[in-house]
Amino acid sequence: MAYDPDNIFAKILRGEIPCVKVYEDAKTLAFMDVMPQASGHTLVIPKEAAENILDLSAEGLVAMMATTQKIAKAVKKGLAPDGMVLTQFNGPAAGQTVFHVHFHIIPRTDGAPLAPHGRSMVDAASLEPIAAKIRSAL
Amino acid sequence: MAYDPDNIFAKILRGEIPCVKVYEDAKTLAFMDVMPQASGHTLVIPKEAAENILDLSAEGLVAMMATTQKIAKAVKKGLAPDGMVLTQFNGPAAGQTVFHVHFHIIPRTDGAPLAPHGRSMVDAASLEPIAAKIRSAL
Repeated sequence: MAYDPDNIFAKILRGEIPCVKVYEDAKTLAFMDVMPQASGHTLVIPKEAAENILDLSAEGLVAMMATTQKIAKAVKKGLAPDGMVLTQFNGPAAGQTVFHVHFHIIPRTDGAPLAPHGRSMVDAASLEPIAAKIRSAL
Repeated sequence: MAYDPDNIFAKILRGEIPCVKVYEDAKTLAFMDVMPQASGHTLVIPKEAAENILDLSAEGLVAMMATTQKIAKAVKKGLAPDGMVLTQFNGPAAGQTVFHVHFHIIPRTDGAPLAPHGRSMVDAASLEPIAAKIRSAL
């Protein structure tokens, strides 16, 4: 499948639609998932136009993972979850719903099940205080 | 928690217990998960002694992700799954059961649910033909 430049994350990267931003550098962006599976659910994307991890360049992969590790550390420090899951879906059969490669960083709490992936949207304003805690831990 | 040098993956790295190997280089190892959540479930680990992704060095992270991408491409080419999930668990609350950082590469088939994580062990011999297909696609 060819990369669709009108996917939601491409629009966020171009500033055409808003996001609750956590971190940005020359090659990557991190922002809150508006359909969180748990409080603090954060997404990391490369700026490179790649549909999935197979299509991403070596340089884009290094950048995405460096930011993913950086944000995971900040989520741990800022939100103190019991654990953290990192997931990355490739293809609709794997649950991918936005076709710009992205990593999910999902805080886990002992005994608390995750909400389903990409199911119900929350108010962006409710994510801002959580993002502030993560940013302050960067 | 301090890194436990007697965890299962440390023993595999030292050759003290066997694995169905898919790939190895100076810094990483990939092998079949003996408790597969789907056929073709492969693990990628760095040789660096790190419990989780927060503890891994920048160099170790780059090596682990380069191998993860390489193996994901080989799984795609060799097994032709409908999709692929990458997961990485940090802490017992996140489902981590072996305390040496590792990435799961899990093939997905349209409509087929995943087996639970780390629940039932298969015969290593049954994994060899699958590993051979992945190796031949490297």
